[in-house]
Amino acid sequence: MRACATAFPAGWRRTLRKAFHSLSPPSSCALLGPNLKDVWNPRDTHFSECHHRKGSNGYNTEIFDGKSIAKDIKLSVAAEISKMKSDIGKVPTLAVVLVGDRRDSHTFIQIKKKACDKVGIATLIERLPESCRENELFDVVASFNNDPAVHGIIVQLPLPQHLDEEKIINVVSPEKDVDGFHPLNMGNLAIKGRKPFFVPCATKGCIELLLRHGVEIIGKRAVVIGRSKISGLPTSLLLQRHHATVSMVHAFTRNPEQITSEADIVIADVGIPKMVRGSWLKQGAVVIDMGVNRVKDSNSRDFYITGDVCFDEAVGVASAITPVPGGVGPVTIAMLLSNTLDAAKRAFGLTDTTGYSSM
Amino acid sequence: MRACATAFPAGWRRTLRKAFHSLSPPSSCALLGPNLKDVWNPRDTHFSECHHRKGSNGYNTEIFDGKSIAKDIKLSVAAEISKMKSDIGKVPTLAVVLVGDRRDSHTFIQIKKKACDKVGIATLIERLPESCRENELFDVVASFNNDPAVHGIIVQLPLPQHLDEEKIINVVSPEKDVDGFHPLNMGNLAIKGRKPFFVPCATKGCIELLLRHGVEIIGKRAVVIGRSKISGLPTSLLLQRHHATVSMVHAFTRNPEQITSEADIVIADVGIPKMVRGSWLKQGAVVIDMGVNRVKDSNSRDFYITGDVCFDEAVGVASAITPVPGGVGPVTIAMLLSNTLDAAKRAFGLTDTTGYSSM
Repeated sequence: MRACATAFPAGWRRTLRKAFHSLSPPSSCALLGPNLKDVWNPRDTHFSECHHRKGSNGYNTEIFDGKSIAKDIKLSVAAEISKMKSDIGKVPTLAVVLVGDRRDSHTFIQIKKKACDKVGIATLIERLPESCRENELFDVVASFNNDPAVHGIIVQLPLPQHLDEEKIINVVSPEKDVDGFHPLNMGNLAIKGRKPFFVPCATKGCIELLLRHGVEIIGKRAVVIGRSKISGLPTSLLLQRHHATVSMVHAFTRNPEQITSEADIVIADVGIPKMVRGSWLKQGAVVIDMGVNRVKDSNSRDFYITGDVCFDEAVGVASAITPVPGGVGPVTIAMLLSNTLDAAKRAFGLTDTTGYSSM
Repeated sequence: MRACATAFPAGWRRTLRKAFHSLSPPSSCALLGPNLKDVWNPRDTHFSECHHRKGSNGYNTEIFDGKSIAKDIKLSVAAEISKMKSDIGKVPTLAVVLVGDRRDSHTFIQIKKKACDKVGIATLIERLPESCRENELFDVVASFNNDPAVHGIIVQLPLPQHLDEEKIINVVSPEKDVDGFHPLNMGNLAIKGRKPFFVPCATKGCIELLLRHGVEIIGKRAVVIGRSKISGLPTSLLLQRHHATVSMVHAFTRNPEQITSEADIVIADVGIPKMVRGSWLKQGAVVIDMGVNRVKDSNSRDFYITGDVCFDEAVGVASAITPVPGGVGPVTIAMLLSNTLDAAKRAFGLTDTTGYSSM
């Protein structure tokens, strides 16, 4: 037998470092498939075709109230943080890295900060200029990785074009990656029986909505429309963990409506307003709309927010649906708080045996 | 702005170490779904029901010859290794860890060793007793991780029950994990645009068979039956990367034959002899049978090897099928050689610009 080596020697660390820092360039090699963008055919998707025929198919569709579930989650997160503060005198801290001046990113960060404030999570916001170099961003992330007083880290996406999102996500410590975008997290989510550090927030919100409403998932046909790494992909993986029979529909799918019309659970994560029509749904399907689209009203100059599902058509066909706004969105924000709390509890060694809940 | 930190400081390394060594206990928490085993209903699956009606539906089914493709791959691997030897005087080395005395594991190792010998890959086989402690196994893996003369590492599965497979897989350096079972590899396979270090061998073999025969994958309906982390799961992820519309069928799927009968490509990875019947298939489907089942002949005392698909029934319905034996199996072994070669090329810095092919 070979001589024993010390458990974590320098060479091994070097390897890990390389693994985490590998550039993972977008691949177009034959084996991994062509690197094509999902571009949906607007013919099938133009939202103006959406009809208003609420209730036409007789189903008394339940509207899942995301706001109220989000409120519940926030209350329980706040209660745990209050207990944590009185037990050990500490609270979770979320570090947020914001690069550049995108207005929407600033808005999202403000929403997240306000939500953190409300439940007692401390925030550290690090702003970097649009022109910042990759190394500067790495250094900021590394300093948060190494700071024991920071429990969760988010790098607000999208980043300016000259920065490589994949490389940045690679360097966020998987233990603090409360967005759950690290490939190690994704692998641990994909593999049955493994436990990821974090489930991406929108996915966690989506499954929480189903679970809280007692929707049976096991053995059900589920279709996820859209396969973003932020929500569609991890949602399909988690539905699989719940033993649904999952099909993934994307821009290259022919006749997506044929597949969705066989599904008991339809998850829309496309980014096309009102793409999913009433006719795409099976009678009694449960519909979770993860889309958040800003659309100009044809009658006025105002913008409004709408989902990926033609809500008015779905009502009366679906047995339940999430509205947009007020559905998955608020629960997603609540899940960021929940993930940050989980990160802090792990860091402080607080478990369900010490009176804290576990994921 | 925060003060810059060094790129890879000690705290970060500690975090990574924890990430890689985290126990990832089998989870049964509500969010991650119940941890249920896939147990198929034998009523639908008993192989003796399989009929012999070759050609009955008129399709002139092509039989994909895995042996000949494997031979091609081995020849090209051998040629690259020969060039490597003459260019830099080095060859790839595969380290194999074998725990215990399972006869089948010994046989597999012998097959792998023989295949390595033939193409010029050096092998190091480390045998540990059935009773070995987890730490002993860790130390052996760590020593291979740290040995620059070792390019690929496989830990032959299954391990004895007292050893935690997940933990062992976690500690194999992802850069040397030629089986591709590490969750970091799986995450990088799942996320579009990312490049895993390795594609698990059976999955790589399956896609190679499709690509070499010019089977169109993009936009096609693909169904993967079975979701093992070794083949079913990564195959579904890679088909997705090739823009198929993928559905995963498993033991909790109701009416699996309804879903498979809509598929252009059917991948069987169940481990139940002849479970997939001719009637499960659409006319003209391409069928890849990843099953390898040892079955007792009802007329004699002999055992024979058969796949998960009722081959005789599928012939005449499918446009193409892989036989068992002689289909995916030999290509899988060839892909282990190909992955080991890739690992060595990366270690030696040999790329396609220096006259070597890339994955």
